[in-house]
Amino acid sequence: MEITAQQAANELLSRDNILILSHQNPDGDTLGCAFSLWYALNSLGKRARVSCPDPLPGRFSYLYREYRAEEFEEQYVVAVDVASLQLLGKLRERYEMRIDLCIDHHPSNGRFAEKNCIYSSAAAACEILFEVIGFLHTPITPLIADCLYTGIATDTGCFRFSNTSRNTHMVAATLFERGADYGFINQYLFETKSRARLLVEKEALNSVCFYYGGRVAVIHISQEMIHQSNVDESELDGISGIPRSIEGVVIGITLREKPDGSQKVSVRTTAEVDAANLCARFGGGGHARAAGCWIGEGEAVAREQLLAACRDFLPD
Amino acid sequence: MEITAQQAANELLSRDNILILSHQNPDGDTLGCAFSLWYALNSLGKRARVSCPDPLPGRFSYLYREYRAEEFEEQYVVAVDVASLQLLGKLRERYEMRIDLCIDHHPSNGRFAEKNCIYSSAAAACEILFEVIGFLHTPITPLIADCLYTGIATDTGCFRFSNTSRNTHMVAATLFERGADYGFINQYLFETKSRARLLVEKEALNSVCFYYGGRVAVIHISQEMIHQSNVDESELDGISGIPRSIEGVVIGITLREKPDGSQKVSVRTTAEVDAANLCARFGGGGHARAAGCWIGEGEAVAREQLLAACRDFLPD
Repeated sequence: MEITAQQAANELLSRDNILILSHQNPDGDTLGCAFSLWYALNSLGKRARVSCPDPLPGRFSYLYREYRAEEFEEQYVVAVDVASLQLLGKLRERYEMRIDLCIDHHPSNGRFAEKNCIYSSAAAACEILFEVIGFLHTPITPLIADCLYTGIATDTGCFRFSNTSRNTHMVAATLFERGADYGFINQYLFETKSRARLLVEKEALNSVCFYYGGRVAVIHISQEMIHQSNVDESELDGISGIPRSIEGVVIGITLREKPDGSQKVSVRTTAEVDAANLCARFGGGGHARAAGCWIGEGEAVAREQLLAACRDFLPD
Repeated sequence: MEITAQQAANELLSRDNILILSHQNPDGDTLGCAFSLWYALNSLGKRARVSCPDPLPGRFSYLYREYRAEEFEEQYVVAVDVASLQLLGKLRERYEMRIDLCIDHHPSNGRFAEKNCIYSSAAAACEILFEVIGFLHTPITPLIADCLYTGIATDTGCFRFSNTSRNTHMVAATLFERGADYGFINQYLFETKSRARLLVEKEALNSVCFYYGGRVAVIHISQEMIHQSNVDESELDGISGIPRSIEGVVIGITLREKPDGSQKVSVRTTAEVDAANLCARFGGGGHARAAGCWIGEGEAVAREQLLAACRDFLPD
């Protein structure tokens, strides 16, 4: 059953002992949703708890700095920013049959909850949470504003990606007004790189190779590079955007060597090429412009296989 | 004399044959201001012309795609995003005594015009132009929205920098509504790099040096690097953000060698250090966290002088 943000708020207002589920490999949006909702429910005097299939990343610790896990038997289960049951990871088995409400923005959302509040035009699930919390009639505190702003900023590449809308900016403006510490958040999330990350980025740039008249670019991050720089894997995310960002490139490929010598492949494309289809050739998938796959081969063989596949996808 | 955006609009409404001056080394903000104002004046049936001390960068050609220079004897001169007369470059001598109006957001603005419309809380001069054009009672066309959005997006690093305010997002929301082609502009300005720019970035990363226990980082872009890569100067803007973005760095310095061997210096700082004060030591200026100056010395001497000055500005 599809419901609106206001109906979702009414559901929440009528319940207590609420469990909030985020997705695995948690990002700023799912955590921003989960903790903003927890703070809002907490201020309404309700008991609530956030559950995440993976450990909470320290990078986002400022979001849960005033969170206290409460013990209770859950009577109502809400999933936030969770597109499919698969993304519940190790929590799937326990909860898949009893998710009462899902609040999400993914067009591919599987409607696995009893009630589904899905706004696929929202740039981030936090944009929907902003509405829901508004209908809870509890104030948006600076801490809630931090959570919601983090989700919106991370899912839009800080207002760069094409999912950014008029409403995204309107919500951001309100969150500024409500005390979001955007100066800190922007600098911390978007303007700060560790020296290790800088080293890897330098090596990645040194590894750029062009093919098909510059329409395909490939970078390679070796295990050696990762060990030498001592970089944390979680810092490597933005790297895969580099090859596609080069003028003229329509398929940008990043090969990341894993400890066993196989390759984790990230593919980023322009509108002309479907990245998900290309990756499907190798058993992977994803979105139209950003997808991934694994190739159980060394770097040279993986590169050759990918370039052969590219030929079929490049526009004439 | 200080005037408001509304008074600036009234000035413009009562005049004709208007010359619009942008600053040298033109960026997205000064050009966004100049051409949005030209389009607005043109739609009011007024004669106007944009004059820039340097050639218009091709990178921003989408801003002036419908601009037609008109020949007339100027009766009213407006400078936009011009903080000091020095920034008028080769146009300074001709116009310095006869600038009727300056619309600017730099706190250091020299009040060199007859009337000065200065809002230093504006993230971009285009944020002020948005107000001024509103008071001209001429519609914000998609083309004007492109100009204003470009100025705002470039001066805020696409809403990342701390100058971004609630009002910045409000204006962006309205510009989306008025048809700004933000999908194109964001991808073009922030997600696309030329190969030449990539080469320079690689070399810049290779040149990073740390001082004062990693609190100061310096990169250097030589004329040789610029020639070898054949990069357009207008593509180098974002580079100066690199050193400050490294974890632990509070003062990030970029030295760009000019053809005469002198150094164009960009300083970016965290909240602890006032970049404008540091640059003022060398006759420069700017904003609290982003400022610049020129040093008429070779790279090694300039570096030494800057590092000596840094000592006085680093927090204990």
